[in-house]
Amino acid sequence: MKFRSQPAKGTQDILPEDMAVRNYVLDVIRKTYTQKGFTQIQTPSVENIELLTNSDGGENLRMLFKILKRGEKLNLEDVTEASLTDLGLRFDLTLPLSRFYANNRSQLPIPFKSIQIGDVWRAERPQKGRYRQFTQCDVDIIGESSIIAEIELLTTVPEAIIRLGFTNFTIKINDRRLLKEMVLAADIDPSLFASVCITLDKADKIGVEGVKSELKEKDLTDLQIDALLQRLTTNLSDLDSDAAKEMTTIIDTVSPLYPIEFDPTLVRGMGYYTGAIFEIASNEFKGSLAGGGRYDTLMNKFQKEAVPAVGFSIGFERICDLLKSKDFRVDPREKTALIVLDDVYLPKAVALSQELAADDHIVSMFKVKAKKLGKKLSALEEEGYTDIIVVDRQEAN
Amino acid sequence: MKFRSQPAKGTQDILPEDMAVRNYVLDVIRKTYTQKGFTQIQTPSVENIELLTNSDGGENLRMLFKILKRGEKLNLEDVTEASLTDLGLRFDLTLPLSRFYANNRSQLPIPFKSIQIGDVWRAERPQKGRYRQFTQCDVDIIGESSIIAEIELLTTVPEAIIRLGFTNFTIKINDRRLLKEMVLAADIDPSLFASVCITLDKADKIGVEGVKSELKEKDLTDLQIDALLQRLTTNLSDLDSDAAKEMTTIIDTVSPLYPIEFDPTLVRGMGYYTGAIFEIASNEFKGSLAGGGRYDTLMNKFQKEAVPAVGFSIGFERICDLLKSKDFRVDPREKTALIVLDDVYLPKAVALSQELAADDHIVSMFKVKAKKLGKKLSALEEEGYTDIIVVDRQEAN
Repeated sequence: MKFRSQPAKGTQDILPEDMAVRNYVLDVIRKTYTQKGFTQIQTPSVENIELLTNSDGGENLRMLFKILKRGEKLNLEDVTEASLTDLGLRFDLTLPLSRFYANNRSQLPIPFKSIQIGDVWRAERPQKGRYRQFTQCDVDIIGESSIIAEIELLTTVPEAIIRLGFTNFTIKINDRRLLKEMVLAADIDPSLFASVCITLDKADKIGVEGVKSELKEKDLTDLQIDALLQRLTTNLSDLDSDAAKEMTTIIDTVSPLYPIEFDPTLVRGMGYYTGAIFEIASNEFKGSLAGGGRYDTLMNKFQKEAVPAVGFSIGFERICDLLKSKDFRVDPREKTALIVLDDVYLPKAVALSQELAADDHIVSMFKVKAKKLGKKLSALEEEGYTDIIVVDRQEAN
Repeated sequence: MKFRSQPAKGTQDILPEDMAVRNYVLDVIRKTYTQKGFTQIQTPSVENIELLTNSDGGENLRMLFKILKRGEKLNLEDVTEASLTDLGLRFDLTLPLSRFYANNRSQLPIPFKSIQIGDVWRAERPQKGRYRQFTQCDVDIIGESSIIAEIELLTTVPEAIIRLGFTNFTIKINDRRLLKEMVLAADIDPSLFASVCITLDKADKIGVEGVKSELKEKDLTDLQIDALLQRLTTNLSDLDSDAAKEMTTIIDTVSPLYPIEFDPTLVRGMGYYTGAIFEIASNEFKGSLAGGGRYDTLMNKFQKEAVPAVGFSIGFERICDLLKSKDFRVDPREKTALIVLDDVYLPKAVALSQELAADDHIVSMFKVKAKKLGKKLSALEEEGYTDIIVVDRQEAN
């Protein structure tokens, strides 16, 4: 029986050149974050299924990979999806982080500044550039209610983005509380909050007129819509809520370092955000390089006390794709090939190989038949070997 | 509803100190392997279920995590384990590597020297030090039939082990072909090969007498047992098969660099080995730090031509546990804390933080209420902050 050699639908094999780019990006991110006092943790890829299905995962729940119970626990008489499964593959890193914090908080400093890098799985309809398994790369500050947490994140993640070569961006920032205040001020029923937000979020695509007509379809009155749109053009300094004041301080603190602007139409998808929300938008193409926000209630799932938290997730896969499309190459080191024509030269080749490797060269041994030497030499040159040594008795002395 | 904060049964949360050790070990391994011309690849965590269940996975197949079909493909009328699932979590990295090679060989050099680092999953009965998700760390050379592949691996992996601080070890080596020759020479039916090997493998635990009596229970005659035991004490140089000659050359080449010895009772578990098998055995405690061997037929699953291959897997989790038990700490860098007593000092604190981080310090900002300053200072000292700066107008000028 011969098997298909393609990876499972929607997943990808990563070749050496792409893997080198991924490792480079991870190294830059990890180094930048570590310098700002973040430390890395790891949570398992699988979580208990109740945790995942009872989350605010929204759309992600429809895309959950569920794992079959094993052994005696699997009862094939009683067949519902729920009765058959007990674990699921995580669809993000934030929910596992919340569980992790509750499980380990006695051993963690306050605030706890976490780096989490890991794969997540979503059964998305496969399409170009979107995979069912992909890597996320999050920083979070847990246990800090003041805006120093937002400021720490907003001066760390952009630094990593710049070190990765993306210098033309703007940080956009808003606050879920400002969005709520706006909807209330426009005398709109709070139950419509999520729906109004979905429309606002499209402002950069469909424009003000588009927003207007979509809100009309959602049965908002002209009065409500006008109040909403007026608010969108109000200066932050004319609002006097706590959220507006905090936002002003954040922007004043970050703006000397990185371009940052208040965007009253910024919504961000996840339902669990409670305060500031932000993203790093490229000025060169649509879409964001990183996004995050404050989520002060998510931890309530695991413990009675509220634990404040802010997170910022870098678009790892997108950044790798962008570097790839720019033909970015991790600086290629010189490579040495040691050619062995006969086993009697093996000890000498090995000694030479150890010596060069200890000197931080990249060195590889090849057994070659004498009559194929010419062909092999061409092949090695093509593979980027800059130094080719045919090992004989003399060479290795 | 409150959720359990423990990770799923048999899986683990990894705290910052342990994660630092893991990253350190991975860096040493990756660097050592890269110097010897290996390049890293990645395969998905999930594979099509037929690929996994039709493998030589042996015991691992009973421990397979199977993933429920999704959407229309899930038919709850037709309930067998097979009909319910279409994917599984990989239980090792070798089978995915074989699939990867078949899928991508046109883009890979010959031979291809691969590093694969990734998690694997096995539904083992949870016990101390054994997890259902753990990290494997493999190097393989694919497409090289000569023993230069074995020699390259046997001079690369021990180097990584030494750099990680484990210097007291012996490489043990045997060959599946020698085991087969031995069973044939003792006039034992080839169908008993696997069973005889299982007994031989226990020689270091149960001794020669133990081997004898277990073979007797397996209905071998005294004549057969004596022939077998005699062969175990035969010198390699007295055998004249190809396997014996190759083994001699390997040992002669590697021994000037690392302690290596022929062990005729070494078996190694996996069914797919076809030639040399080896492991790095610690001289200080039972068990091996790394193990591997040649598997020249595994690739036949995916393609008509046989593709020779040799692999060597380092015991990543065991090495991390050993370092942990030795209280190994990744060299701690000095950490600076910037204390902010009032938001007006935020811009200055941020400027100072950026400056120090650019200088490769580890620096973290803390918002502290004036009356809690004393307590916070003690806490920070305890967390290892060697440099604590209370930022005020003067400080940051």
